[in-house]
Amino acid sequence: MENFTFFNPTKIEFGTGKEQLIGQILAGHGIKNVLLCYGSDRIKRDGLFATVSDSLNERGVRYVECGGIVSNPVLSKVREAIALARTHQVDAVLSVGGGSVLDSSKAIAAGALYAGDVWDLFIGKGSIEAALPVFDILTLAATGSEMNNGAVVTNEQTKEKFAISSVHTFPKVSIVNPALMQTVSRDYLVYSAADIIAHAIEGYFTATEQPRFHSRMVEAIINTVIETTETLLENPQDYHARAEFAWASTQALNGLIYAGTAGFSYPNHMIEHSLSALFNVPHGAGLSVVIPAWMKWYHSRNPQQFQRFAQHVFGVDTPEQGIAALEAWFDKIGTPTRLSQLGISEADLPKTIENILGNAQWFGIAEIYTRDVVTTILNHARQ
Amino acid sequence: MENFTFFNPTKIEFGTGKEQLIGQILAGHGIKNVLLCYGSDRIKRDGLFATVSDSLNERGVRYVECGGIVSNPVLSKVREAIALARTHQVDAVLSVGGGSVLDSSKAIAAGALYAGDVWDLFIGKGSIEAALPVFDILTLAATGSEMNNGAVVTNEQTKEKFAISSVHTFPKVSIVNPALMQTVSRDYLVYSAADIIAHAIEGYFTATEQPRFHSRMVEAIINTVIETTETLLENPQDYHARAEFAWASTQALNGLIYAGTAGFSYPNHMIEHSLSALFNVPHGAGLSVVIPAWMKWYHSRNPQQFQRFAQHVFGVDTPEQGIAALEAWFDKIGTPTRLSQLGISEADLPKTIENILGNAQWFGIAEIYTRDVVTTILNHARQ
Repeated sequence: MENFTFFNPTKIEFGTGKEQLIGQILAGHGIKNVLLCYGSDRIKRDGLFATVSDSLNERGVRYVECGGIVSNPVLSKVREAIALARTHQVDAVLSVGGGSVLDSSKAIAAGALYAGDVWDLFIGKGSIEAALPVFDILTLAATGSEMNNGAVVTNEQTKEKFAISSVHTFPKVSIVNPALMQTVSRDYLVYSAADIIAHAIEGYFTATEQPRFHSRMVEAIINTVIETTETLLENPQDYHARAEFAWASTQALNGLIYAGTAGFSYPNHMIEHSLSALFNVPHGAGLSVVIPAWMKWYHSRNPQQFQRFAQHVFGVDTPEQGIAALEAWFDKIGTPTRLSQLGISEADLPKTIENILGNAQWFGIAEIYTRDVVTTILNHARQ
Repeated sequence: MENFTFFNPTKIEFGTGKEQLIGQILAGHGIKNVLLCYGSDRIKRDGLFATVSDSLNERGVRYVECGGIVSNPVLSKVREAIALARTHQVDAVLSVGGGSVLDSSKAIAAGALYAGDVWDLFIGKGSIEAALPVFDILTLAATGSEMNNGAVVTNEQTKEKFAISSVHTFPKVSIVNPALMQTVSRDYLVYSAADIIAHAIEGYFTATEQPRFHSRMVEAIINTVIETTETLLENPQDYHARAEFAWASTQALNGLIYAGTAGFSYPNHMIEHSLSALFNVPHGAGLSVVIPAWMKWYHSRNPQQFQRFAQHVFGVDTPEQGIAALEAWFDKIGTPTRLSQLGISEADLPKTIENILGNAQWFGIAEIYTRDVVTTILNHARQ
């Protein structure tokens, strides 16, 4: 096992009704004035906004609203929110939403205390020396952002979808109430399943050092996601399945399954980031297209682990059967497996490849992911 | 899934050579004068003490030695160390050793800032409002104490083996270098395996609510412990097996596999605490005697989960076969499965039963663990 440091100071408040604690939690951290970030007005219609504002009012915590954060969150909005945070001199950021709102909130929290432009922090021109404390109420389980220090934002001008991470951007407290996720659409449920599986498999397949213990933990996550997704497609109100799905999602990207592994990379995310940066497809939908295609190209590089995956996840024998089973499962639950299902045409391929090659630089895997390789992988996603 | 709060702020520094960072770590936390707790003089003979003292000296961190902490650590020693901590006005406690030294260190850290007698904190007469910061270098993987806030100490006078836990007693930083564990004796390796398995199964079998995700995580831990123990018995120098064993041990009791479960109890620990309090047997050796005996009595209360255990851990079909397989495995690796192997005779049984009944009160499970039940379980451990 590789040497590692594991540190994850985020407190998770998990379960029904926990969102009612938000005023108490913020006041307990000495917060007096918070930037309240969210996406659409859905949280106003479904009562969550009222619950949050009541709880804040009760504890005397003031808030400034910053709504309208979109999926695949964009840099312009982050910049706008940083200006708002500065104008109102907020002392914390509260995210109420899914991974996009939370990732934006982390970027806002870091950017608000950075003298230059926040994009500097994404491209290595500046480093995160401090951040406002971030708190969140999660409404979609997928990205794992509630228990890690990473944030992904798209620069709409340059079409770059890049990430930051820092010891300062762990959420202080994340509220995860699976009941708030019962209204997630069928589409976003299956995209989320693909996203969680993507988080679990990147290291599992690509690590040069992958302890068997870690493989077992990954399989525990994937098998739980598969099982609970099927339960939730039949009965979206199943709280226990929703809860297991959400907790598996948190575990997939809180550092646990990566601690001690080595030499891994994120090729599926690297490719998908181009799809969502260029065509604004849902991240999970992009991933379910990329993963089987990538696997068809990659599996011969790590046949033993692909065989393990086939056996331990789908109960089949060969690497090829395991990949086919995952693809068939994606088809069955109704998340895309072909570029055409994302509305990406043949004519779009050249600029997609260029964008991916740029990402490969940023992800540090440009030597492996050459133009030929990327073309081969995308071809697997066409057929 | 039950509502829960998950918070584990301990930083883990895992891997070879990490003990050399201790001076830097303490200085980085502003520590100037530390109580250095350890067990036998083995750490002086094998060079670890010199490494630690060199590292402390290099960073100008003074230390006061407190050696001689024994397995099944005792209250008198904790009291002695608290006096020492006060006399020398240390500002932190550094544990260099296994779970006994670390548990003592947590009790010392809490007791040093408590006005009354430290045992008050174990029996509910006082509560832990503060504690000195605790740091540790772990030399034995078994108790999981390196990533939780619990500490177990035996009151030699009353023969009570009780525990404390508090948000203040999480170690700040735990250094886990599997290479330091390569000199652990064969006996202590197999006792440790039993201890880790005990941590993993208590909730797995007794919880009234046990999500399947959690069962999968438990099985990942147990299967890793079984596999790596066998590897280490053949080759104690296998670093990778030692590392997986150690990390599985940490995961077994850092809260992860219990978060969201409900209604569980610790009957195996409850019974074993009496064996080690009365007869000073190694905790893990006591557990490997208790576990199969307890299972033979308990399994009909949760047959589905015992069948799951049989299938997912040992690849056999029935609850009875699973229990027999675990007992056979304990026999195979050479950890005791009968009271007589611990030197506990027929004549010792009455006082053992009395002590267990007292523990059952403390553990809050006296209604289930009546005299009849305890006698039945102990009978399974005689035959």
